[in-house]
Amino acid sequence: MTLVNRSLITIDDLSYGEIEALFKLADEMAGAMDEQHGLCRGKIMASLFFEPSTRTRLSFETAMHRLGGNVITAADVGATSLAKGESIADMAKVVGSYVDMIVIRHPWEGAAKVVADYSGVPVINAGDGGHQHPTQTLLDLYTIKKEKKTLKGLKIGLWGDLKYGRTIHSLIFALAKFGANILFYPTPGLEVPEHILEKLTLEYGGELEKHKSLDPAAKEKLFPLDAIYLTPSSPHQLAMMPDVNIQVELKTGIDALYVTRPQKERFTTAEKGKELREKYPVVDKKLLKSKEFRRTLVMHPLPRVDELARELDADPRSMYFKQAARGVPVRMALIALLLGAKDVAIPQEKAPPITYPVYRRDYGPRCPNPRCVSVQETEVKYVRPEFKVVNRRPLTLRCIYCEHGFEPEYVASSDWHEGKTATKKYHSAASHWARKIRTENLIVFRSNKDAESLGFKPSRYVKVRHRRKGTPK
Amino acid sequence: MTLVNRSLITIDDLSYGEIEALFKLADEMAGAMDEQHGLCRGKIMASLFFEPSTRTRLSFETAMHRLGGNVITAADVGATSLAKGESIADMAKVVGSYVDMIVIRHPWEGAAKVVADYSGVPVINAGDGGHQHPTQTLLDLYTIKKEKKTLKGLKIGLWGDLKYGRTIHSLIFALAKFGANILFYPTPGLEVPEHILEKLTLEYGGELEKHKSLDPAAKEKLFPLDAIYLTPSSPHQLAMMPDVNIQVELKTGIDALYVTRPQKERFTTAEKGKELREKYPVVDKKLLKSKEFRRTLVMHPLPRVDELARELDADPRSMYFKQAARGVPVRMALIALLLGAKDVAIPQEKAPPITYPVYRRDYGPRCPNPRCVSVQETEVKYVRPEFKVVNRRPLTLRCIYCEHGFEPEYVASSDWHEGKTATKKYHSAASHWARKIRTENLIVFRSNKDAESLGFKPSRYVKVRHRRKGTPK
Amino acid sequence: MTLVNRSLITIDDLSYGEIEALFKLADEMAGAMDEQHGLCRGKIMASLFFEPSTRTRLSFETAMHRLGGNVITAADVGATSLAKGESIADMAKVVGSYVDMIVIRHPWEGAAKVVADYSGVPVINAGDGGHQHPTQTLLDLYTIKKEKKTLKGLKIGLWGDLKYGRTIHSLIFALAKFGANILFYPTPGLEVPEHILEKLTLEYGGELEKHKSLDPAAKEKLFPLDAIYLTPSSPHQLAMMPDVNIQVELKTGIDALYVTRPQKERFTTAEKGKELREKYPVVDKKLLKSKEFRRTLVMHPLPRVDELARELDADPRSMYFKQAARGVPVRMALIALLLGAKDVAIPQEKAPPITYPVYRRDYGPRCPNPRCVSVQETEVKYVRPEFKVVNRRPLTLRCIYCEHGFEPEYVASSDWHEGKTATKKYHSAASHWARKIRTENLIVFRSNKDAESLGFKPSRYVKVRHRRKGTPK
Repeated sequence: MTLVNRSLITIDDLSYGEIEALFKLADEMAGAMDEQHGLCRGKIMASLFFEPSTRTRLSFETAMHRLGGNVITAADVGATSLAKGESIADMAKVVGSYVDMIVIRHPWEGAAKVVADYSGVPVINAGDGGHQHPTQTLLDLYTIKKEKKTLKGLKIGLWGDLKYGRTIHSLIFALAKFGANILFYPTPGLEVPEHILEKLTLEYGGELEKHKSLDPAAKEKLFPLDAIYLTPSSPHQLAMMPDVNIQVELKTGIDALYVTRPQKERFTTAEKGKELREKYPVVDKKLLKSKEFRRTLVMHPLPRVDELARELDADPRSMYFKQAARGVPVRMALIALLLGAKDVAIPQEKAPPITYPVYRRDYGPRCPNPRCVSVQETEVKYVRPEFKVVNRRPLTLRCIYCEHGFEPEYVASSDWHEGKTATKKYHSAASHWARKIRTENLIVFRSNKDAESLGFKPSRYVKVRHRRKGTPK
Repeated sequence: MTLVNRSLITIDDLSYGEIEALFKLADEMAGAMDEQHGLCRGKIMASLFFEPSTRTRLSFETAMHRLGGNVITAADVGATSLAKGESIADMAKVVGSYVDMIVIRHPWEGAAKVVADYSGVPVINAGDGGHQHPTQTLLDLYTIKKEKKTLKGLKIGLWGDLKYGRTIHSLIFALAKFGANILFYPTPGLEVPEHILEKLTLEYGGELEKHKSLDPAAKEKLFPLDAIYLTPSSPHQLAMMPDVNIQVELKTGIDALYVTRPQKERFTTAEKGKELREKYPVVDKKLLKSKEFRRTLVMHPLPRVDELARELDADPRSMYFKQAARGVPVRMALIALLLGAKDVAIPQEKAPPITYPVYRRDYGPRCPNPRCVSVQETEVKYVRPEFKVVNRRPLTLRCIYCEHGFEPEYVASSDWHEGKTATKKYHSAASHWARKIRTENLIVFRSNKDAESLGFKPSRYVKVRHRRKGTPK
Repeated sequence: MTLVNRSLITIDDLSYGEIEALFKLADEMAGAMDEQHGLCRGKIMASLFFEPSTRTRLSFETAMHRLGGNVITAADVGATSLAKGESIADMAKVVGSYVDMIVIRHPWEGAAKVVADYSGVPVINAGDGGHQHPTQTLLDLYTIKKEKKTLKGLKIGLWGDLKYGRTIHSLIFALAKFGANILFYPTPGLEVPEHILEKLTLEYGGELEKHKSLDPAAKEKLFPLDAIYLTPSSPHQLAMMPDVNIQVELKTGIDALYVTRPQKERFTTAEKGKELREKYPVVDKKLLKSKEFRRTLVMHPLPRVDELARELDADPRSMYFKQAARGVPVRMALIALLLGAKDVAIPQEKAPPITYPVYRRDYGPRCPNPRCVSVQETEVKYVRPEFKVVNRRPLTLRCIYCEHGFEPEYVASSDWHEGKTATKKYHSAASHWARKIRTENLIVFRSNKDAESLGFKPSRYVKVRHRRKGTPK
């Protein structure tokens, strides 16, 4: 198994063993930063940033230069070829024909996957809208692992805007993969999106418990502990569960507190209004005085604004500047591996990765996420909707681009032998008829209108239900 | 003959033999892209883009990096020194004192020539307004030649916006130089500008036939064939001419169809309105089904929007992504030659290039093209108007910067012996007096007002004419 | 003494001997520009431009590439992380953890010092608001020295906008350090700021004479000679002083005339209005015809607009394009020294640099300069105000960031033994009580309101004065 010529779009693209091997190489590189500049001599990376960013872009470009490679940069490309109405696929094909590797940041969720699909070279996702930012996750994990030696069984708190912080979304799955427990302390109203939590429990096992209340005293200075994810990989006292136990366990200490900035630029108008009215706690020395934070790594993806007090900068628990600095060797290791400049031994995984049946039709529903690359005006012409069928009960499809999921209301079957397409009847997705349809025969509809516009007629049971609900036939 | 230290501003700057030698070197480089990075070690290219562009800039920068050189970039410079009111000449002198070569894109037509005049280093024009984009032309030619082995006698169709597509303008002359025939299929209203066609027939010989109609059936899906340029270099059945023959000949097939995007950003308000009202044909599989397109290379400078169907991407006739990819070795070859990092044997040309008498006075007309560099506020102070006298009947001057031509209405002579300046009389440019003036003595005026403001008086014949036309003395 | 790992924020950061050593290395590099690209191999410079600039940025980047190093660039960063409300210190820490050196341009005065304080790597100030631009000064000095062999005793005229031209401010101190005399020819209303003149006479000795009038004839074409700084280092006829003598001396010629562009982008509304109404002289051949300009170097930091006639470009006295070109070897020498890639012998200074007592309190006045980095919303949270006490009579504090000075109106003492804080009385800064307070005990207030809001009460004498002036107790 090797990483050569592969892309990193979501953190799932790397197995546990691959990440461990990458970290070992990052250690090596961190120990001799000035001695790597022969590794990628003659190689060229395109650094394409369709959203403003300095930090991440400069980190990637530094990494490539430390490896002796060259960089061509398009920073804040919004105003250029995109303005001419070009598709991402065309751009990817052209730039891919110039260079050896592409690093891309883009506001549309799933855009990096499209680039990887069309460019013909390894692609690294440097942030695609609110979706993922996997190299940030790698350096976060790397930092925790370096400080705590392992991730297994740790208690990691996530703090603040858990809705729009894409670094959070990647991190959640990575923590689960490495067997950590996760404590969610969201800003009220900015909780982790449902589809993330669903994927978490579905694919990583473990249990997710929602907590409405910790002790009221804590509430004054802390965001409330909203939920807790208990890893299945290490049997753990937390798993005993009742609220009391959790609180006892928390007293033994949180291993890391991952603070995030409110991503105001992605807020809805309602969220902006709320933000103006409420006053949120700042993570500062006082907050970190309580016993459970004694050995807590204070982490932040940066840039911070006011959510993290400057007085912590000199505190030995503060990791945020170390995180940023470690981004360079981690990205060097990644680039070197994808370009084949280095090879590492990757242990065979015990558990093969989860695979799902694929749903792909020339007609039918598009991804419901308005920020998904697959529904943008310039992309809709060639990006075929494609979903993973991640659940049958309830029937749940997950977009392969942005990973947003949805539950279709109606289904039909393409299986002629069962005669259902012949008569072109559609069924409620929750009906027992629906459950009998084999996944490869499945046709889904988001509404009865959609089904009927494609020439399908309601089954008898659907009709009855419609009549009951007063829906006109 | 050598290319070292020369500049490439228009495609005319390279002879047939030089282009052939360049293509040979590009072939060599394409065959060993990873082995060239010792060639320009220590050299620096400035990549100055005063107009947004990602594709072209990244292609040049990739080429320089593949040669082992360094690049300093100013992308979208509009907001910087220009804003301070600096002239192009000053900018060119300063940057030219830093680097070994300049690549420039600028919205003003002729700007690259000014940079070449003042910088003291080799300059490559990467697009100057609607004027030229010669390296695009080189990669277009290179692609056709690679696929068809020769350009001589080929039939190349140009499709779409032939008015604002600067790639088209460079390409026309290059095709003529290489002995190809050109079929013009413009979007109605976006025909090739007159001064381009004039230069074409004047300098490359050949005949230009205008066609008002092909068969009406074709019209439905095709832009009408508006004109055809027949190369003089290969006696050809097309030259027999009557419409019938052309149609017979076309049946044998078009060798390449060069499609262009409507350059909406350069449209006048009237053109924008028209564009909204009309529906234009898309080049797609259906259109390319007819017999004459069986072996047609489908070309496009990219980015495309909707004028070229995505279904063609996998078609073996589609060349547009290959064109883009080949831009890198072609630019590598060019850079290496201009910097003297490589040398090639260039065969002596059979025909010496055409030269024209120069018109240069401290007073008198400026270029009538409002986008010409020579009439811009910051440049007018030092750029001296200069024209080539490309024709005497009618008297035609061509701006040496933007190559727009104009026909002055009145003339005088500076020749004291003939006594015409002594008495300071001006004549109609079409008069027999005018024809007798030797080019080196010529003084031209765009209007009688201009002539009189410089102290010239109308000749007797002019006076008569003015009286007849009711123009006040 | 060595330059390794030091920063260059103001021209004062380099001693006379260090500048001389730097110039010697620049000479060496200028003589073999193509042979230096092994010196900084593997080193990375971050080029961070928070204000538009092409010229300076490209010069630095060229210099680094000529040394074989790499560059990561953030041009016009305004729109990126700053927009997210990040502090300069955070940005500096992060980027400093990536690279080996930072070059920064920023609109806030003192910003480069903050970057140097936090980044942990050598920092070069490439212009911080209206404060300083020390590498411009180095290349200006280098040019004069190369042409005139020495700077000692030269007469250097400064012409035009002496208020906002930051290159002027750095240059003034450098000229004084090198023993030159300075003639000030400001655009009326754009004179050198007072705090610059104060620092000049205070730290460099010498005398400053204000001149209200030269001969009226000169006024027509020249800006009036507003002031003259006479260096103490060379006894000089100018020092004899009466106006008549100066005029006699000027007849022997000005050695260099340093012309500047009106920095319209920094003008106040009133200054903009004035600028529209008045017509300013242009430095041209006619102006330079008078005898005193016969051997005058014509200098300009560029870009120029209209203040310097193009007809001078070919004049052998014109230095401005040479200045720009020499910026590259000067910056190469500087970078190589700060990175330790080269070492030079630096002679021991005869006079140790001037040091001042420091004023630093957790409360009390902030810098009065609204463009100072220390008073910006994102920086005020962590940048502690800090001043040098540069004078006691009148008491004058100078901001360590932007070097603006101010004179506090009231003072108190922290010295308990004298009982003044115990009773918390404040005194007029000009009183004899105030003079007795030792600098380390000093507490300053900009107004009585400030003093009283901090719990101080007026001393008896202050009270009397307030009563007299009708100020309510």
